[in-house]
Amino acid sequence: MVMELLHAAMSAPSAGNQQPWQFLVIDDRKVLDSLQNANPNAKMCKEAQLAILVCGDATKEKYPGFWVQDCSAAVMNLLLAAHDRGLGAVWTGIYPIQERVEGFRRLFKLPETIIPLALIPMGFPAKESPQADRFQSERVHRNAW
Amino acid sequence: MVMELLHAAMSAPSAGNQQPWQFLVIDDRKVLDSLQNANPNAKMCKEAQLAILVCGDATKEKYPGFWVQDCSAAVMNLLLAAHDRGLGAVWTGIYPIQERVEGFRRLFKLPETIIPLALIPMGFPAKESPQADRFQSERVHRNAW
Repeated sequence: MVMELLHAAMSAPSAGNQQPWQFLVIDDRKVLDSLQNANPNAKMCKEAQLAILVCGDATKEKYPGFWVQDCSAAVMNLLLAAHDRGLGAVWTGIYPIQERVEGFRRLFKLPETIIPLALIPMGFPAKESPQADRFQSERVHRNAW
Repeated sequence: MVMELLHAAMSAPSAGNQQPWQFLVIDDRKVLDSLQNANPNAKMCKEAQLAILVCGDATKEKYPGFWVQDCSAAVMNLLLAAHDRGLGAVWTGIYPIQERVEGFRRLFKLPETIIPLALIPMGFPAKESPQADRFQSERVHRNAW
């Protein structure tokens, strides 16, 4: 199932189809328990079965600065694929908070060219969380601002 | 159908659920024809029935720098919803190419706080384009880099 999720993630479009991403799958209990040290917003990792660290790979970037959008598209696909399989998953932000970026770099000894963007803890949810309707018509403009 | 697509887009997660996005729906032929002046990669707008300009809204950002990820998640949802309805759609990049950002700002007289991120031309496709399998196992790491 994890490979299916990563398949979905890597189906994302990217600038010039450069696919400037790397994925670190974390399912070792000890590593999962240590993740909150690098990201205080990721305390739920202590209870999650799995987390996926999505990283940008600067060596694969042809169009400077687009890796954030490319990797974000991959994260969105990952979340939707997880949801489709009955998993609960949450996007916890790392980049551009430099302290968190460095925390994950230290924890996993990531090369300087690998930029951790987001950590996605996931697992089978204990209960359903209803999704609020976020549509706001005032955010829609037509042919002119 | 356009409202359904925007519903999907606005369902995206965002940092602190701040939803720092704005959408400009372009279906006026004259405006569609002028878009390629602001983005040379968007020549297909001359043949597209519709384009949606996805913008960040700096006034709604609580966590600095996360708007790019938030709006990219919205774009990915928009593309998937379009695909699901048989539409063809493509992500053409604007931000962080300053010249393109300024081009769209001028074209639509956008306020300084509104940052155009991506333009999504779409329409009913003349033919099917098969999607390549982009999965690459060497991009997957487990518990360590």
